[in-house]
Amino acid sequence: MELKSQHKCHGGTISYYSHSANTVGCEMNFTVFLPPQAANGKCPTIYYLAGLTCSEDNFTTKAGAYKVAAERGLILIAPDTSPRGDHVPDEDGWDFAKGAGFYVDATEEPWSEHYNMYSYITDELYDLVLDNFPVDKNRIGIFGHSMGGHGALTIYLKNKNKYKSVSAFAPIVNPMNCPWGHKALGKYIGEDRKNWANYDACALISVNGDASGDAEILIDQGLSDPFLESQLMPEQFEKACVEVKQKLTLRRHSGYDHGYFFISTFMDDHLKHHSIILG
Amino acid sequence: MELKSQHKCHGGTISYYSHSANTVGCEMNFTVFLPPQAANGKCPTIYYLAGLTCSEDNFTTKAGAYKVAAERGLILIAPDTSPRGDHVPDEDGWDFAKGAGFYVDATEEPWSEHYNMYSYITDELYDLVLDNFPVDKNRIGIFGHSMGGHGALTIYLKNKNKYKSVSAFAPIVNPMNCPWGHKALGKYIGEDRKNWANYDACALISVNGDASGDAEILIDQGLSDPFLESQLMPEQFEKACVEVKQKLTLRRHSGYDHGYFFISTFMDDHLKHHSIILG
Repeated sequence: MELKSQHKCHGGTISYYSHSANTVGCEMNFTVFLPPQAANGKCPTIYYLAGLTCSEDNFTTKAGAYKVAAERGLILIAPDTSPRGDHVPDEDGWDFAKGAGFYVDATEEPWSEHYNMYSYITDELYDLVLDNFPVDKNRIGIFGHSMGGHGALTIYLKNKNKYKSVSAFAPIVNPMNCPWGHKALGKYIGEDRKNWANYDACALISVNGDASGDAEILIDQGLSDPFLESQLMPEQFEKACVEVKQKLTLRRHSGYDHGYFFISTFMDDHLKHHSIILG
Repeated sequence: MELKSQHKCHGGTISYYSHSANTVGCEMNFTVFLPPQAANGKCPTIYYLAGLTCSEDNFTTKAGAYKVAAERGLILIAPDTSPRGDHVPDEDGWDFAKGAGFYVDATEEPWSEHYNMYSYITDELYDLVLDNFPVDKNRIGIFGHSMGGHGALTIYLKNKNKYKSVSAFAPIVNPMNCPWGHKALGKYIGEDRKNWANYDACALISVNGDASGDAEILIDQGLSDPFLESQLMPEQFEKACVEVKQKLTLRRHSGYDHGYFFISTFMDDHLKHHSIILG
């Protein structure tokens, strides 16, 4: 793990790291915010998964999360969104391959060697962070935006032992039924669609049967988001939550679009949501 | 004036504009944040001048200013830092020419045709903004970072009829006596150094004689700023303020560097500083 740069911010410290990651076979970057409270003991920790075209830096520079994180003593981890490097296969376009790992473990060639962001986030980076920072392992949450909202929801639903709270900004909730999902899952996982359910938040939440005792999920969605009807369809997730009695707060915001000006507006609410659940 | 894009943020609106600017002979970009209160009448307004290498977008995406601006009803204007376009002369390097207009009116060839950022900010953009947005013209302030802190201080000191409040993050206060200033003023204004005093905050404040009745100036400076001793030297401005009884709050912050993580940490304090003076 190599420290690339470090910056004081709101009394805490933002650090940019890179490390050689086995699961994805390349150097990976991530950032860590340690609040002032981390000097005195273990802290609750939230992972933020970014969306299509993003790197670890979009959250760090644009989300405006660090003031409230410092007040509430939250560690924030922001990983990259795909494997990187000249040796990693790529494709033209912005909705698949580099910058678009979709937080899955690919099974299809030529993607399966490197595009294993699911294992990277849930195992390799998870353990690396536990080993190197004052993270309270019983108080870890996860959130994300768009493709990263999909990542956060699916990872949470499959790993409630590791993540205790979840929220999302404008998430892809039903990739089995949207063009971004069809393209990504078709190429990463193959054309047998029954395998896609393992990476679909709507499908995964239905597996629970009765989730009435589980922590509330918070989702914010802008109503001027150009991807709302074609790709995001939060009503599908709302329906799935009702069926299994999963508590969901889905807030629809007039006038807000898909970008970081929307995210930064509601960031503090998400940090409070996690902070309250994580205790 | 052409609207390029618009985003809702914290209940207000961020708009990206471009316009054909006469003073600098090119298309110029700027952003405007209108708080919710702007729907009901004129609002106090603050200009933010960015530093070397920046555009209008650094403040807009990274400074984290819009939450408090929305709460306090402040319009925020973020211009670019130099003329732009293929027909505008440039030089290699990042501390002169494009991205480095230094908020002066150049007198030397080949810079004098386009590099007139002083007139652009204080006259052309100032009037354009007054004509098109609900700005209370008796409640306008200005602030900035590094080269933009130099711009804010010098523009304020020469135009107290137009700007009623000023503050700066890690400003260049004495360009007559630092390498960035020597290079920029030498090329833009010429080698006769007595002409440089017109763009030097330390020199300009001394002209006042007695500034004891003037509004307080706020400056924040990180003590881990790599440019502190070689370029910024806030103690020179502190000394000049004492001599003319200018009220100055100069805060030195241990561990903070020169970037937007530093700026965003103290942004709210600056907005409050302006908001209180502007009333």
